[in-house]
Amino acid sequence: MNAPLRLGIAGLGTVGIGVVKTVRQHSALLSARTGRDVSITAVSARSRDKDRGVNLSAYAWEDDPVALATRDDVDVYVELMGGTDGPAKASVDAAIAAGKDVVTANKAMLAIHGQSLAEAAETAGVSLRYEAAVAGGIPVIKALTEGLAGNDITRIVGVMNGSCNYILTRMESAGLSYDEVFAEADGLGYLEADPQLDVGGIDAAHKLAILSSIAFGTRVDFDGIELEGIERVSINDIRHADDMGFKIKLLGVAQRTGRGLEQRMMPCLVPATSPMGQLQGGTNMVAIEGDAVEQIVLRGPGAGEGPTASAVMGDVCDIARGVRLPVFGQPAASLEQADRATAVLPAPYYLRMSLVDKPGALAKIATVLGDAGVSIDRMRQYEHDDASAPVLIVTHKTTRADLNTAIAAMKSTSVLLSDPVVLRIESV
Amino acid sequence: MNAPLRLGIAGLGTVGIGVVKTVRQHSALLSARTGRDVSITAVSARSRDKDRGVNLSAYAWEDDPVALATRDDVDVYVELMGGTDGPAKASVDAAIAAGKDVVTANKAMLAIHGQSLAEAAETAGVSLRYEAAVAGGIPVIKALTEGLAGNDITRIVGVMNGSCNYILTRMESAGLSYDEVFAEADGLGYLEADPQLDVGGIDAAHKLAILSSIAFGTRVDFDGIELEGIERVSINDIRHADDMGFKIKLLGVAQRTGRGLEQRMMPCLVPATSPMGQLQGGTNMVAIEGDAVEQIVLRGPGAGEGPTASAVMGDVCDIARGVRLPVFGQPAASLEQADRATAVLPAPYYLRMSLVDKPGALAKIATVLGDAGVSIDRMRQYEHDDASAPVLIVTHKTTRADLNTAIAAMKSTSVLLSDPVVLRIESV
Repeated sequence: MNAPLRLGIAGLGTVGIGVVKTVRQHSALLSARTGRDVSITAVSARSRDKDRGVNLSAYAWEDDPVALATRDDVDVYVELMGGTDGPAKASVDAAIAAGKDVVTANKAMLAIHGQSLAEAAETAGVSLRYEAAVAGGIPVIKALTEGLAGNDITRIVGVMNGSCNYILTRMESAGLSYDEVFAEADGLGYLEADPQLDVGGIDAAHKLAILSSIAFGTRVDFDGIELEGIERVSINDIRHADDMGFKIKLLGVAQRTGRGLEQRMMPCLVPATSPMGQLQGGTNMVAIEGDAVEQIVLRGPGAGEGPTASAVMGDVCDIARGVRLPVFGQPAASLEQADRATAVLPAPYYLRMSLVDKPGALAKIATVLGDAGVSIDRMRQYEHDDASAPVLIVTHKTTRADLNTAIAAMKSTSVLLSDPVVLRIESV
Repeated sequence: MNAPLRLGIAGLGTVGIGVVKTVRQHSALLSARTGRDVSITAVSARSRDKDRGVNLSAYAWEDDPVALATRDDVDVYVELMGGTDGPAKASVDAAIAAGKDVVTANKAMLAIHGQSLAEAAETAGVSLRYEAAVAGGIPVIKALTEGLAGNDITRIVGVMNGSCNYILTRMESAGLSYDEVFAEADGLGYLEADPQLDVGGIDAAHKLAILSSIAFGTRVDFDGIELEGIERVSINDIRHADDMGFKIKLLGVAQRTGRGLEQRMMPCLVPATSPMGQLQGGTNMVAIEGDAVEQIVLRGPGAGEGPTASAVMGDVCDIARGVRLPVFGQPAASLEQADRATAVLPAPYYLRMSLVDKPGALAKIATVLGDAGVSIDRMRQYEHDDASAPVLIVTHKTTRADLNTAIAAMKSTSVLLSDPVVLRIESV
């Protein structure tokens, strides 16, 4: 039996307590599987006195996570506080500098500082692992970095924010507005302290940026993501999309194009019958496409005490077993800065517009689309009882540039009553 | 850069050639990801002269896989011949004895000889990896052994033979009989040389035995699997099941019970709307349930050149990166011999029977079920134009023992025209 592996855990919220419970409950299992005892020596959190439902008196307490991260009796620093900078970043920096292995669930920190952290960790010869940062309990980092290492990865597509998927599927099932379901989700504690991180797509985009880096051998480029949240998705669009055989999902897509790396996180339509279209509630799903493997799809709980602790413990077990890998799957120094490509790849689009209820209005819209080279796959005009006629169009594949030309032309026709809703249709 | 990793590949069928292509096409990618060049030094197959569509002249040729496995210029022996014993087993034994790491796709060999091979590999201090042996391109061995190592695994459920799933879904979509689709699949080359391995459930059971061992820390116990193939599934049952909201799948289930480990591979009903129920064609799907992670579901191609080569290369990359793990996730010597439990766990069942078309026949059946303590959830009698009345029953949860008692009693009622079809209903 090798020497015990000693954890120092900073952050005793849902995930941190989940990790504490797992280490305690599964000590025999962990030592059988890793060949050494896994134990906790010290913990840190904002408040020492808070009742967390578990007795922490066996562990040393540090008020300062930096002090925790650098303790002599800590081998692995487990950072579960969150936040792009602040104590999380300072303590991870300190842990790496002190030669400690690091496990973190902090997607924001990695999406912003991933490159410098990876370089620091690799220079110091320590592990920096973050399975819990992406898609909760799904071992997607491992699948991508290790299991599919023999593939040229061609595309990543995923639903990676459970709260947004909860809101969108709940709007549909309960027939409620975005604002109503948002309030409900917030009340249930389903949203981050800053809900904009969820509904603005930022949290999901952090995750996408991390997956992109591994998939394409590029430096994490969060700012290169075309980003749009779900705040403007209306129950009308959900219903109309359903009517045409689609569901609306906050979908992340990363794909190499001839002009660079295209990364998008935005509400999209996906076929209602596809695995992604059928995804309900807070579940996450990531599809990985590679030249050899074709497509694999991973599905599981995107958050929660158990699933996130499971991901953290997967990393801890790897470290205990002596597994050492480059942070993003190849040495950080060899990661390239990807050219950013935006809206290069053509796709079909869904358009919803309100037209003045006069003869020839629809013909004008069809004409400007045709003039811009955008061909119409399906068009529907819905019944209405006022002067505004709701019209839906599904286009054939088109570039966003051609579509923008068409929309600009529409706006000058005087038949359009408001800006059209435009949603990309993604095949998954 | 570390020393190159040199592969010797035995077996140049679909998978072997896929591996050769991947190593050639992805040399830059493999060395970026693993920190060393990955190359092939020697190959072996039954016939040297066969045109395989790739030029193999750069590699040394060995007629004898044992000679290949023990060559000084081979670091990793890649066994892709298949077969429980014979050259596959002899060459893997020889490779381990010669201190070579081994990668294999050979589920039959591992299901039968897994324990002794694991002990030998661990004693010799070499890796024995087999991602490609289970569920094709899906990195399920990695997910279970590593990603979910912090979990007490509670259940594994999966569709792990693409050919069977192809047959069952094709029967339904084309309205063809088992024999018709079997002939079609055989003609298309979808079945093993010995088709009984596929349709008899044996191939899938080999895979289940391997997953069970990792999940539950037990010795591979293929003989402990309750096994039934799909040969007796009729188009009638597929239609009736569909009518009641179910699909029929060849489903593997491994689960710990109070009396031991229950392993089953048999046609089951699953809800039509479940991810498993919606699985079409040759795709595989494995759900893993653990105390922390709840449930993750992995889906992907179960066979084929690219997907299987992807799995082999995942193992090769791990070896190149210096990853060393116990073969079944914990040292082979510590794996326990599981007690075998058969049909311990209760479940709802689907029963189809033909009754004599006389008053009181259905009442008799209902009575014997009630007398055996089996309660009826749903019952349907279908229209008919002869003397035999087709009746379907879905029971509430019951033990197989109680159900068997009921069936024995039915047989003595004289209203039953033939043995009833009995299929377990599994929740997934």
